[in-house]
Amino acid sequence: MHLNAEHDSMGVLERSFELEVAGARVPGLLWSPTDATGPRPLVLMGHGGSQHKRVDTLLARARRLVRRLGFTVAAIDAPDHGDRATAEERARRVQGLQDRIAGRRPLDDTARQEGARRADQACPEWTAALDALQTVDVVGTDGPVGYWGVSMGTAIGVPFVAGEPRIRAAVLGLNGAVPGPNSLAEPAKRITIPVEFVLQADDELVTLEHGIALYDALASTEKTLHISPGGHLDTPAFEADSWMAFFARHLG
Amino acid sequence: MHLNAEHDSMGVLERSFELEVAGARVPGLLWSPTDATGPRPLVLMGHGGSQHKRVDTLLARARRLVRRLGFTVAAIDAPDHGDRATAEERARRVQGLQDRIAGRRPLDDTARQEGARRADQACPEWTAALDALQTVDVVGTDGPVGYWGVSMGTAIGVPFVAGEPRIRAAVLGLNGAVPGPNSLAEPAKRITIPVEFVLQADDELVTLEHGIALYDALASTEKTLHISPGGHLDTPAFEADSWMAFFARHLG
Repeated sequence: MHLNAEHDSMGVLERSFELEVAGARVPGLLWSPTDATGPRPLVLMGHGGSQHKRVDTLLARARRLVRRLGFTVAAIDAPDHGDRATAEERARRVQGLQDRIAGRRPLDDTARQEGARRADQACPEWTAALDALQTVDVVGTDGPVGYWGVSMGTAIGVPFVAGEPRIRAAVLGLNGAVPGPNSLAEPAKRITIPVEFVLQADDELVTLEHGIALYDALASTEKTLHISPGGHLDTPAFEADSWMAFFARHLG
Repeated sequence: MHLNAEHDSMGVLERSFELEVAGARVPGLLWSPTDATGPRPLVLMGHGGSQHKRVDTLLARARRLVRRLGFTVAAIDAPDHGDRATAEERARRVQGLQDRIAGRRPLDDTARQEGARRADQACPEWTAALDALQTVDVVGTDGPVGYWGVSMGTAIGVPFVAGEPRIRAAVLGLNGAVPGPNSLAEPAKRITIPVEFVLQADDELVTLEHGIALYDALASTEKTLHISPGGHLDTPAFEADSWMAFFARHLG
């Protein structure tokens, strides 16, 4: 895989890459400790709906994992997101999500169908990205791999993690299992690795009932559910510390 | 308050004390960094039913808080527990709890009434202990104070924390709000400080419904609920790391 050196930010080297998967261009980023050599743990990060591979919150988490734990982190743009959409499409998607949150309109059947189609496309893209990343010196084939992704990152992450035996631990949440077609409960039942699952009690997009149903569906023997007050965008900052500790425990 | 130097264990000085509150003898322990001087944060730890102020798990947590964060920690024997009971009474209480867990018999009205009576006695004892502890050089009157207590430590801790403005943050859990007289929901509604609340999904003594009801009753704006699989005695060891981070965040 060809990596383009982008820039170095206080000990964190950021490099971009691009894959072609089933005819689609998949741009990604890899963060690693500057001057690091040799394999180390890797965390794959799936961004949320309307976001992209370098959204500020994801970037901050990636840099913390690299600086504090010496891990590598990688992110790719999901289908129809980031560099895979026009500025106009991106703006429309951001507005659509804001309106949905403001109107407290949980995802409906149509949105879930679209989400399932996107996940069908994204899963082989993540697998291809992981294949390619494991050829990089600082990742390697033997190092432990984790997945982080909430909201749309869970809609994609649940089927991806369920079908990818290289993932050893995952942070998921801000999504639920709604009975019916395309329910995330089905792939969740095949997940057996340790999971930290986060929900917000007043989530405008996910009822607590559906969120708990998705947590319950996980077959993992180690799975901890964290519930805090507030809406879809209000996950407390201290949960990020908990994610660091979770990945340190399982991949470090 | 008179403190008896007991012993020093790898940087942790353990001293015992004894108070008289409403005619009852209340023995306690204070842990602090060896050779520490001057005020520092204090965590009060309420042990569980059938346990005592120096039960192994409590002792381990106390020493970690002292060694890693430089805090002080104090514990007292609850009414009818530890040095306030005969060896025979203690053995009977341990057996009773084991039988209750093995038989999956949640606390009934009689047990809750006994718990409420015990809490009525224990709350002023904790207040007196805190008054006395704040006269000690390494505690002082200005330092932040936290409370840790699950199961019976929550049955006592909820009314204690609700009525004690010096407590700034609390870890609670493994207990629930059962509708009816002596419900913990009433004092919980007066708690507004940050709380980390832990529940076990298969708790033999507390249904998840009642546990969540107690969490819901808390008036705190910062309150995070952690749910893990397993029974009353199976709280994962990593929750202890989370408690450390919680107290470091709020008292450190």
